[in-house]
Formats: sequence, structure tokens, C-alpha cells
Amino acid sequence: MLDHGSGGKKSAALVSEIFLPAFSNAALDTLGDGAVMAGADRLVMSTDSFVIAPRFFPGGDIGKLSVCGTVNDVCMAGGEPKYLSLGLILEEGLEVDELQSIAASIAMAAGEAGVHIVTGDTKVVERGKGDGVYINTAGVGFLRHAGLSPARMREGDAVIVSGAIGDHGTAVMLCRKDLGIQSSLCSDCAPLTGMCKALAAFGSDVRVLRDPTRGGVATALNEFVEGTGLCIELMEDDIPIREEVRAGCDLLGLDPLYCANEGKLIAVVAAERAEAVLSAIQNAPYGENAAIIGRVSARSAGRVLLHTGIAGTRMLTKLTGAALPRIC
Amino acid sequence: MLDHGSGGKKSAALVSEIFLPAFSNAALDTLGDGAVMAGADRLVMSTDSFVIAPRFFPGGDIGKLSVCGTVNDVCMAGGEPKYLSLGLILEEGLEVDELQSIAASIAMAAGEAGVHIVTGDTKVVERGKGDGVYINTAGVGFLRHAGLSPARMREGDAVIVSGAIGDHGTAVMLCRKDLGIQSSLCSDCAPLTGMCKALAAFGSDVRVLRDPTRGGVATALNEFVEGTGLCIELMEDDIPIREEVRAGCDLLGLDPLYCANEGKLIAVVAAERAEAVLSAIQNAPYGENAAIIGRVSARSAGRVLLHTGIAGTRMLTKLTGAALPRIC
Repeated sequence: MLDHGSGGKKSAALVSEIFLPAFSNAALDTLGDGAVMAGADRLVMSTDSFVIAPRFFPGGDIGKLSVCGTVNDVCMAGGEPKYLSLGLILEEGLEVDELQSIAASIAMAAGEAGVHIVTGDTKVVERGKGDGVYINTAGVGFLRHAGLSPARMREGDAVIVSGAIGDHGTAVMLCRKDLGIQSSLCSDCAPLTGMCKALAAFGSDVRVLRDPTRGGVATALNEFVEGTGLCIELMEDDIPIREEVRAGCDLLGLDPLYCANEGKLIAVVAAERAEAVLSAIQNAPYGENAAIIGRVSARSAGRVLLHTGIAGTRMLTKLTGAALPRIC
Repeated sequence: MLDHGSGGKKSAALVSEIFLPAFSNAALDTLGDGAVMAGADRLVMSTDSFVIAPRFFPGGDIGKLSVCGTVNDVCMAGGEPKYLSLGLILEEGLEVDELQSIAASIAMAAGEAGVHIVTGDTKVVERGKGDGVYINTAGVGFLRHAGLSPARMREGDAVIVSGAIGDHGTAVMLCRKDLGIQSSLCSDCAPLTGMCKALAAFGSDVRVLRDPTRGGVATALNEFVEGTGLCIELMEDDIPIREEVRAGCDLLGLDPLYCANEGKLIAVVAAERAEAVLSAIQNAPYGENAAIIGRVSARSAGRVLLHTGIAGTRMLTKLTGAALPRIC
């Protein structure tokens, strides 16, 4: 089902029921955004395939996305990304001009992120067996921020988001639906290499990082507390959300907390360093709207709670249902 | 066009006209099967996407192929493969049983090759936007056989092939066409890690390695001599080809020299060590039918010549035309 690719519960079931039993090893089993290969290598590796529709969208295209997505995953695992591989699956009939334009986006994003495309592969499939272009990138880097893990979270830790949420998912859905809406909303697609370099200086006071892509902020936070005795409590009024995202989500029947981001991170940090980390993020590229949005508590083990503006409390579960197919 | 993915002249044009200008860097520009990252890292990286149809074929399936293909590319670049990433693009409707069986093949091949699947990603696309399953793998390893390059070839060097050629391409085409032929022919799909470990002991006496996949032996050898003052002369009678491959190729109008292999390598080696290298290959897994098939000469710069059994000489060019779409 499409839902197996949505980044929610069914995706998690595929991983736990099929892939982990088949491939289990120490690096894979941590289920981070990227793998940290223990031992002297200190390598970090991650991969993503990109099947986004449409492949050109406000704020980016599949090429830029395919660099930022993987670079950010290497960063979230504590790595400094250095090398990318690039695998293209082209559908017969794709225009060479379009491929050229996607290649230019890839080159520009790789330049900004400081990574080299060192190896690649191109396959072509018949018309009707693809959708223009699918891209896979794998990224390799070296560990510079060791030990990032949800297991390091403690009661009282602060939860920081690096900027306004839901931009990517909402912008792509709005442009896909062709609703005839004039919107200035753009995807937030961007490499977080600079921001993560700044975060590395805080060492173990940064507990864990995650970029909330498919499944959004709510799903990422659920993955943090899953299987722990901890709870994450969010203050709805503190979560930065653009007006255009609110309006777009209302129109589309979506919730920004479940919409994909492609240039944001969530950091859980020690309470006493929260303001310092926040300020470091705000001074890093793409971090100007960062905010502390919640705290780690022991109120309800394994749960994410949202305190709403009207003094209510709502439980946020993982994404269920393919709300947003082919969003990345 | 489909031909842009066939591994022949049009594939090479995509690389030289679009990808190299956009992404140029020292590791990429060598255009080997994998990239060697110079400097202290001594990393080797390669990637391939797999779109083979049908996805189950005699001797393997897309899962086994996706491990062997990338592992072998890392080996050809002189690396000892250690880590693989796995990116799946599934078409809505693929049976979970089938995915499970592909995952089992991947795990078995990875085990034999001595690599760990450390990171992965799954996307699902709508019916009619894929073809069951496409797989990308990227492989990372450490350099153990430095300096492999066509630039190291010298007049008099021997050309060795590690076994009978054309098995993979012919087996897949025969089973695809559903010609109702009873054939015992299987793909040669296999990891060449053991063989390459043995070859590393010969150091710079092994000039260059390549696994002749898309485009076959003829295309790979053309890539070796391209832009050099050297020629490769092959003795047709010395090239190991199974009877079933000869018969199948006759029937399909194919030439085994242009058919894909997925468990064979070509090694160009110093003349004085040729017999020793041959014997090492023959004693390694999958090498029992290895043979010396030709020599490097200065007879005709940049050309590959085939001396036929009837004392004629034929020039072998790179593959042109999409003889074998979606063969890997």
C-alpha cells in the first residue's frame, strides 16, 4: 500500500517485521536517520530515495531535495557529510533539458552542503514504469558529534525546533492540488550542515537530533519517547508555524505537526544549556525562527502530549494513513 | 531513450555531457566502477540502481543482484567492501511475501560478501509508476588494492577473464522472452570479494580490474583503451563461452561479447605474472573457468581487435543501441 511509504506506522512495521529481522547489525539496529559505524572508522552513512511529485515545486526540485535529504540525515546521526553517491532511475521520454536542470540543482546544493558527488549510476525504464525521474542518494561522512541517541534524554530536557514547521509538505501539497491558490509558501528544503557544526560544540548536552521529514514533528517525537519511560510535552503556542501553512493545512485538511519538513531539525538538549543552544541555532543558517517548544517529562511514559492554547491537552500519536504520499 | 541506460555509447554521452560537467571532482572524474577518495580516508564508494525485469530469474533475483552488483564495483575500484545502504522503491500492490523473499536474498548475498546493510529507505509509488520493486544500493569499503587504472596498462600485458562470459544477459533475456526453451543456463550473479582479495596480493602487477556488466566484455575493454595509445587484441578461441550461451545468443540475435555478466571480472596484468594471476583466480571462488583471452599491444591506438577462429580480425566497438534494456 502507498501507506507503507508514508513514514508512519505502516512504514515502521515494514522495518520491524521485514528489514530488521533480515539485516540486523549494530549500526542498523539503532534506527537513527543514519548509521554510525562503530570502531576506528567513525563513519556515518545514510540513504534516501526521492520520488516526489511534482518534481519541481516552490522552493526546490527533486535534485536539491535529494542532496539536502541525505546530507541532513548524515548530520542528524552526528556526521559531517563528505561524499554522496547518486543513482538515477529515468523514465523513457524525460527531456534532456530537464535532466540538465536537475543536475544543476544537485551541483548547487552539494556545493552549499560541502559534499562531493563521487559516484553514480543511471538506469532508464520504459514509459509507464516510472514517473520522470526517481533519485537515490547515499551519503558518507565522519562522526563529529558522538553519542546522539534518544536513550540520552532526561527529565527536564528542552525540545527545540529550528524554525517554522510544515513548510515543505504544505507547499508541495498546495502546488500539487492545483487549487488555483496564490501562495508565497515555499518548501524549506535546505542543508543543515552549518547548523549541525554549531551544535557539535555542545557535545553531550545535545541528546538527540532528528529532521522531521515524512511523518512530521509529531512522528519524530514519538520515535524519541517510544519504549522509554519519558514523555514529551509540547506547548502549542510556542510552535512556530507560518500563517500560510496554517491556512494551507486548514484548506487541505492537514495538521502541520504531521507535515514533512526538509530543512528543519528537532534537538533535545539539557535544560541548563537550552538558551545557549537555541541562540546557536538562531545564529546558524536557516535557524532564525528556532524556538523551544516543549520539555521532556515523566508524566506519561512513551507519549507525546500537546498543551493547546485553550488549556486543553491532546495526545499526539505517530502518523497513521498515507496522508501525504510521495512528498519526498 | 531506453538506450541511455544500456551502458553503451548513449550512457557514456549522458555522463560526459551532463554529469561530469555538473559534478566534476577528482574521485568522480576517474570514471571507474567505484570512487576512490584520496587522502587519509582511503575510502572506496560505489552505487547502482537495479531495475531488472523479471525480478526473479534463473540463478538469482533483484535482491541478490543488488548486493553483488555494488559489492563487485567496490572491489573493482580496489576496495574491500564493508557497508551497504539499501533504498527500495516499491510499486503499490507488491506482495509482502515477495518483498520478504527479496530481503532474504539480500541478507544471504550480503553475508557471503561480508558486508553489513547499515542504513536503508523505503518509498512507495502508485500503481503504474514503478514495476514491482526498484533497488538502489551504495557500498562503502576501504582501499586494499591501490592504483588500479587503465593508465597503468603496458604493451605486452595479458588480459584475463575470470570465467565464461554472457551468462547473466543471456539467461535473463531467455527467461524474459518466454520462448518455451528448456535451458539449464543461470545468471552468474555472485560476489567477487574472495577473488579480489587474492588479486590484491599481486599489487601493481594487476593494472586494472572491471566487471563487465551492461555493455559486456567488449564495451569494458573499449573503456580501457579509450584515449590511450594502446590496443587490446583478443583471441576468439580462447574466450570461454558456454554452449547454452552460444545457442541462446544465436537464437536472440545477440553477441556474448556484449552480454552482461554479474559475477565475472576482467583483469589486465603484467605479462610475467599472467600465469600466476590466472592460477590465483582459478583457485578463488567463481574463478574455475578463468582464461587468458588476449594481450595489450600497440597495433592500433584506442581499439579492441578480435582475432577470429578462421584467422580473420574484427574490430569491437562499444555497445550501441539498447540491445538489452533492464538487464540489471
